[in-house]
Amino acid sequence: MAFPKQVRLAEMSPRDGLQNEAGPVIATEIKTGLIERLADCGLTHIESASFVSPKWIPQMGDAADVMAGIKRRSGVRYSALTPNLKGFENALAADVDEVAVFGAASESFSQKNINCSIAESLERFLPVMEAAQKHNIPVRGYVSTVLGCPYEGDIAPEQVARVAKDLADMGCHEISLGDTIGVGTPFQAKRMLEAVTKHVPVERLAAHFHDTYGQALANLYAVLEEGVAVIDASVAGLGGCPYASGASGNVATEDVLYMLSGLDIRTGVDLKKLVATGVWISNQLNRPNGSKVGQALKS
Amino acid sequence: MAFPKQVRLAEMSPRDGLQNEAGPVIATEIKTGLIERLADCGLTHIESASFVSPKWIPQMGDAADVMAGIKRRSGVRYSALTPNLKGFENALAADVDEVAVFGAASESFSQKNINCSIAESLERFLPVMEAAQKHNIPVRGYVSTVLGCPYEGDIAPEQVARVAKDLADMGCHEISLGDTIGVGTPFQAKRMLEAVTKHVPVERLAAHFHDTYGQALANLYAVLEEGVAVIDASVAGLGGCPYASGASGNVATEDVLYMLSGLDIRTGVDLKKLVATGVWISNQLNRPNGSKVGQALKS
Repeated sequence: MAFPKQVRLAEMSPRDGLQNEAGPVIATEIKTGLIERLADCGLTHIESASFVSPKWIPQMGDAADVMAGIKRRSGVRYSALTPNLKGFENALAADVDEVAVFGAASESFSQKNINCSIAESLERFLPVMEAAQKHNIPVRGYVSTVLGCPYEGDIAPEQVARVAKDLADMGCHEISLGDTIGVGTPFQAKRMLEAVTKHVPVERLAAHFHDTYGQALANLYAVLEEGVAVIDASVAGLGGCPYASGASGNVATEDVLYMLSGLDIRTGVDLKKLVATGVWISNQLNRPNGSKVGQALKS
Repeated sequence: MAFPKQVRLAEMSPRDGLQNEAGPVIATEIKTGLIERLADCGLTHIESASFVSPKWIPQMGDAADVMAGIKRRSGVRYSALTPNLKGFENALAADVDEVAVFGAASESFSQKNINCSIAESLERFLPVMEAAQKHNIPVRGYVSTVLGCPYEGDIAPEQVARVAKDLADMGCHEISLGDTIGVGTPFQAKRMLEAVTKHVPVERLAAHFHDTYGQALANLYAVLEEGVAVIDASVAGLGGCPYASGASGNVATEDVLYMLSGLDIRTGVDLKKLVATGVWISNQLNRPNGSKVGQALKS
């Protein structure tokens, strides 16, 4: 129960951000330009692509080209989402540093979103886990709807803990806890985290909060107080969950970094460069900058 | 050092909100319509006008008409800003329930903004304090730039404490601590509050945080933890400090209320009606709704 001295920011914009952008497919060069700029800001974990069927998410259809196009920077982890073995094999061929799988904490969400139970969804990851282990690729596990579900509302913390434990037991080295519809508030975030840490140590957990209801920073402050030291965020607040109403998606990396700096928590990320990157990508996509810090500090 | 069970929301939109709106002077009927709707939401403290020379703030030139035009609801405190005795007399004639004076925590801000030292500015309030006492009108004291100043940067917590104590000693029943440029972060807010509570009990303090850097809810959470039980906010995030860059001003009342509800803190305010009020005033002013909750829940 102490604030961490250092936090790793896991940058979600190239994947969780761009995959939810409406409009035409974004040019590969913009994606690689974004990823290279993010690495130049000092971010050491960049979720760069999703190896999923382009029939499902056309915006991610150029995942292999993106991975091939980026100038890699040493010390940076370029990760990708791989929902199945085919995706994993493509990600492996594209030389990703880490892959990720995702389960839901809500049974209704799992059923309506991927047409199977939570248990079935986790079972489908077994071949990915096995292949990843064989090739010595670390796997990150996402749990969605940890603070609420668009179909069933509140989610019991124990239910989140169960799914997190299952993913950890399957071999995920890190579990990212996602309030993917951004409905949670601080006590709720704390209670959820307390339930999860009974099964998975806090060192292996990440907070992935969306800002749909403006609560993300308050919720992050509450879980930082419990020792969470990995935070997922997206520059300029890019992206969001298509199932949540409202305009906001992932919490903006700039806003998180500003708070962490004020709390004297080290990240190694340069705020000025990050603000410039948020301004640049917002201009490229012709969308408003979703970061308040970005708005306030843009020159 | 415990979260309060109940919080009073002090609604700033008709004054701190509208006075900072650019564009043409807003019709009196829109102002009275806003105030009546806010009272109907369950808000019991509405800062309704500023009795200041219209030469200085044309947007507040109809303060007397606003006060005369609203249908008063019993149990609601309709307050107004009164920077000098003339303003106080006009406010008294308009039958306000509470008046307010404001000092800065930053010497540079005081000099550049009102051309006198902090000590001189407080001295100028003495006739107001005296007249208010004579007429049995409670006086609220605002302290601005409590977490940072656009001219001198960081502000020592002890400096805030000194000005807060002076205002309390002069007879202000409540002191509202304003991060008027929205630059603070949670530890800083806590440290400032700790310094102030050495001189003024927390029961007499309010938190008045702007959301320019997106930090307001996290900062509020941090001071709620220290027992603050009065929060200033503005529906739809109306207004802002003209000295701060960026688009955001006062933290949105909807976003604060959503968090408080999640923390099981009572306010007596109806979120659904408040969201509708934020949508209504945003439409009237033809400006974007600055509340994320308002954006997410608008129907």
